[in-house]
Amino acid sequence: MKNQLPFTKEDLETIIEKHPTPFHIYDETAIRKNARRLNAAFAWADFQEYFAVKATPTPRILQILKEEGFGADASSMAELVLAERCGILGEKIMFTSNNTPAYEFDKAIELGAIINLDDITHVPFLAEHCSFPELICFRYNPGPLRDGNAIIGKPEEAKYGLTREQLVDAYRMAKERGATRFGLHTMVISNELDATYFVETAKMLFTLVAELSAELGIRFEFVNLGGGIGVPMKPEEEEVNLETIGEGVREAYESHIAAKGLDPLAIFMECGRVITGPYGYLISRVIHEKNIYKNYIGVDASMANLMRPGMYGAYHHLSVAGKEDQPNDMQYDVAGSLCENNDKFTIDRPLPKIDIGDLVVIHDTGAHGHSMGFNYNGKLRSAELLLKEDGSVELIRRAETLDDLFATLDFS
Amino acid sequence: MKNQLPFTKEDLETIIEKHPTPFHIYDETAIRKNARRLNAAFAWADFQEYFAVKATPTPRILQILKEEGFGADASSMAELVLAERCGILGEKIMFTSNNTPAYEFDKAIELGAIINLDDITHVPFLAEHCSFPELICFRYNPGPLRDGNAIIGKPEEAKYGLTREQLVDAYRMAKERGATRFGLHTMVISNELDATYFVETAKMLFTLVAELSAELGIRFEFVNLGGGIGVPMKPEEEEVNLETIGEGVREAYESHIAAKGLDPLAIFMECGRVITGPYGYLISRVIHEKNIYKNYIGVDASMANLMRPGMYGAYHHLSVAGKEDQPNDMQYDVAGSLCENNDKFTIDRPLPKIDIGDLVVIHDTGAHGHSMGFNYNGKLRSAELLLKEDGSVELIRRAETLDDLFATLDFS
Repeated sequence: MKNQLPFTKEDLETIIEKHPTPFHIYDETAIRKNARRLNAAFAWADFQEYFAVKATPTPRILQILKEEGFGADASSMAELVLAERCGILGEKIMFTSNNTPAYEFDKAIELGAIINLDDITHVPFLAEHCSFPELICFRYNPGPLRDGNAIIGKPEEAKYGLTREQLVDAYRMAKERGATRFGLHTMVISNELDATYFVETAKMLFTLVAELSAELGIRFEFVNLGGGIGVPMKPEEEEVNLETIGEGVREAYESHIAAKGLDPLAIFMECGRVITGPYGYLISRVIHEKNIYKNYIGVDASMANLMRPGMYGAYHHLSVAGKEDQPNDMQYDVAGSLCENNDKFTIDRPLPKIDIGDLVVIHDTGAHGHSMGFNYNGKLRSAELLLKEDGSVELIRRAETLDDLFATLDFS
Repeated sequence: MKNQLPFTKEDLETIIEKHPTPFHIYDETAIRKNARRLNAAFAWADFQEYFAVKATPTPRILQILKEEGFGADASSMAELVLAERCGILGEKIMFTSNNTPAYEFDKAIELGAIINLDDITHVPFLAEHCSFPELICFRYNPGPLRDGNAIIGKPEEAKYGLTREQLVDAYRMAKERGATRFGLHTMVISNELDATYFVETAKMLFTLVAELSAELGIRFEFVNLGGGIGVPMKPEEEEVNLETIGEGVREAYESHIAAKGLDPLAIFMECGRVITGPYGYLISRVIHEKNIYKNYIGVDASMANLMRPGMYGAYHHLSVAGKEDQPNDMQYDVAGSLCENNDKFTIDRPLPKIDIGDLVVIHDTGAHGHSMGFNYNGKLRSAELLLKEDGSVELIRRAETLDDLFATLDFS
């Protein structure tokens, strides 16, 4: 499956005539198909996915997802403005930030975004520095209440959200300040491949909605289950079955919400990685081979284009275009050119024999790929291309130039 | 010592009237004093420091260091162009790159830079694709020959340099292609506080120069000891005594070079961190306080301004301006606003009681600080200021704007 690419080596060479390597390329057909699959999995519900803009803050991608009915999960001024410029407005934006300055709240309120507060002190802060919205949401951090779960990690070590006790006070304080519509949010899982955890998260929120509704005499309009659906990075991993999540959440909804007369309750998600991650590829040319204590293949991409392997040691599958079916009888560190020894896309990875001039395809770079790039060592961030449904290719972000890099400098 | 800042809280508030937080500020007086100290420690030698541009690629800083006699260690096209635009030219540039494209070699040769080759295959590559320079240097990777040394790490895991065997062939091949002047380089230590290791590195290179001179019948003009001199990040750590390094290298030079008639041999270094690191500070305003399962202080800086704590878990000392003498009787995670839980400058750090509106001073950000920043979550990279010798403040890099962030996009 990992070696089934939406382009051949020849396709890539044709694209490269116009767009030199390295570049990211996104598969529109696959993005749309997957978006529809998520919507279908929750067709039973009043469902809204807010795409996590940080994953791929590229207007053309946001527009495609908008056409599929998605909104925008924005976390900063820049992401709010991006959503606005893409025509994603009003309650199609969910503003989930932390440690937030007043001017960002102001912008979110101006756009009519749903405000998701990360801290109880933001209730008086918002009332004092901005205007308090009619619709308000709070982010819940279950802390040690979910400590037992190894995969979820330790929510009490995370800076996000309110405690269970604070939630009651927070909704009450919001009500006092004029809020009449309420939502509840959490985000406790990241890059998780087991569908069970998303159903458990839904159950946790549904239970909390029931408790808080009774305790506070308020009606909840929605819960936002957060994101965190992972993608299979390694060939032996299996993708999360979105239908399983949708069906599991539906059953929980029936027993925990509908049966208690708490419906209708809209279901929101704010996935990023699973929406675009597997449908983006980093294409890079092999420019060097080096044999010292290990075998190195040098490519023209670097951590400037993809940080995750160097920063987290994350596995990203790598194909050699046109050699997909050759045996992996060599072992290479595929490296970028940063003066940082962690600037490697693979370490001791079994791969087919690679030659200078080959094209490597680094998989699953459609989310948190280009967006995390830096300019360290004076490296320029690459272009982004869209492989459109009709097979043509569109430049959706141009490559940086030295002038961009030096834009904030005055040499005089 | 860590709490002796070159500015008071009042100074900072005055600066902030014109330059809003967050920003990096560099202490010109301290940078110059330290640069002179390094030059003095090697006054006995024909010495040249090549400042590692990647540490602080800011023209005004490069110009100050140029005035102190330093050259530029460039690793990429952008760094070569920066050096050029700062008037650092010819053999005042050392081009130490890896996995290098031909156009970067061309630029380095055009500038008359010293070319430091990272791989033996670059000899024919340079001859074929560019022109082969008269003066050539090679980077040595001792590999398992220095495996025994725990602090140095495992050079054989590093992608850099040539093996001992390759060196002989490489110089011979270079000679055949017209090289008449030779240098030898290594870089096997990073952020090291023990002066001994730098003297050992010098001895290793001096020994190698003697062996290679005899073996090849060539005369070496210089050795480049690399960089890697660390800075004391924690209050209890002591700075490296540059004079001890200078004196140790001198003794090794006498016994290993002069006594063997191999002099004169120039001594080069390519330090970055120790040159500017301790003399830069990231200044940020406290905008939020949050108490959930831990106590959080939210500031207006983030990983966009300083990656090292979030990326490596690196310790950076943090002072609260005006509270330098107060007891550290609180414990805080000081966090930025990224939607990444590792966006924290401190974790469980004992600090004085912090209030909203306080200014935090994050230390040792003068190298690998601003230069490693990214735009993830749509965060903008901050300005850089220079605290000049006369006490005035100069803007040496403006803050990014949303227009900068969106410069590579077309919203139409």
